[in-house]
Amino acid sequence: MATNDAVAVGLVEGVLKSWQMGVDRGAKLFGRSGDEELEREIAPGKNRLIYIYGHLVAIHDSLYPTLRLGTRLHPDWDELFLKGADRTVSLPPAAEVREAWNVVHERLRVGMAGLSAEEWLERHALVSEEDFAKEPHRNRLAVLLSRSGHLAYHLGQVVLVK
Amino acid sequence: MATNDAVAVGLVEGVLKSWQMGVDRGAKLFGRSGDEELEREIAPGKNRLIYIYGHLVAIHDSLYPTLRLGTRLHPDWDELFLKGADRTVSLPPAAEVREAWNVVHERLRVGMAGLSAEEWLERHALVSEEDFAKEPHRNRLAVLLSRSGHLAYHLGQVVLVK
Repeated sequence: MATNDAVAVGLVEGVLKSWQMGVDRGAKLFGRSGDEELEREIAPGKNRLIYIYGHLVAIHDSLYPTLRLGTRLHPDWDELFLKGADRTVSLPPAAEVREAWNVVHERLRVGMAGLSAEEWLERHALVSEEDFAKEPHRNRLAVLLSRSGHLAYHLGQVVLVK
Repeated sequence: MATNDAVAVGLVEGVLKSWQMGVDRGAKLFGRSGDEELEREIAPGKNRLIYIYGHLVAIHDSLYPTLRLGTRLHPDWDELFLKGADRTVSLPPAAEVREAWNVVHERLRVGMAGLSAEEWLERHALVSEEDFAKEPHRNRLAVLLSRSGHLAYHLGQVVLVK
């Protein structure tokens, strides 16, 4: 496989750009919400904005090891924003979630920029080498596209509060 | 540029697979909704499911010419599901939206499968050749990724009714 193929490089650039546009859109949407607005529910009885905010940080923090870039920063946040439903556990202050959003996404941006086109087609950390040999579509690219969709999915909910 | 580069081909396959997963998820979500449920709002005072359903069909129908694959099937649907807000115009029956969903997405699937990796980096129809020379990221790939995000965004709203 040719790693320096201009078409492959252009395709990866497009995928990364699209991811970053979603992240920037999220940063803007949540950034415009004061601490009080973050307490609002997206619909009656549904998650609060602050929960979705931290949920996205937790998922994107775990994307770092899933892409085999290194260890994550907030392994404890899965308990708060993933396993525990909203309002069942006490959440960190909004300022802490805001700060984590920035750090987690900047770290991801730098880490992902260092992957070659070929490396995007290598396995992600949630699939074993044996399974990957049979299912080569379970690669880093697939995970990033899936997380891009997950981000957009939740941003579609966040705007309902706006 | 090498069109047959295996890495480039693998990247395109990943993007198309991710798009199709979103379409299939939408088909399942809307498919499980009876005509009565399609009348429900995603949140008080917000769009009804039937509006989002038709909105996605209209946007994806217009994706066909935007990818320069040919003409669209329902140019009149923009008036109903895009320019007009929900409840301001009379919408087609749910059965018609369901049928259009299937036809539009199958046609897209076939059309997109015929594009080479290199062609995904060519301009889309909403940018002129002059502008594209200066902004080569405004290509077919960028449009498809944007529409994938748009689809996920609305599916995140649709699940609120479930």
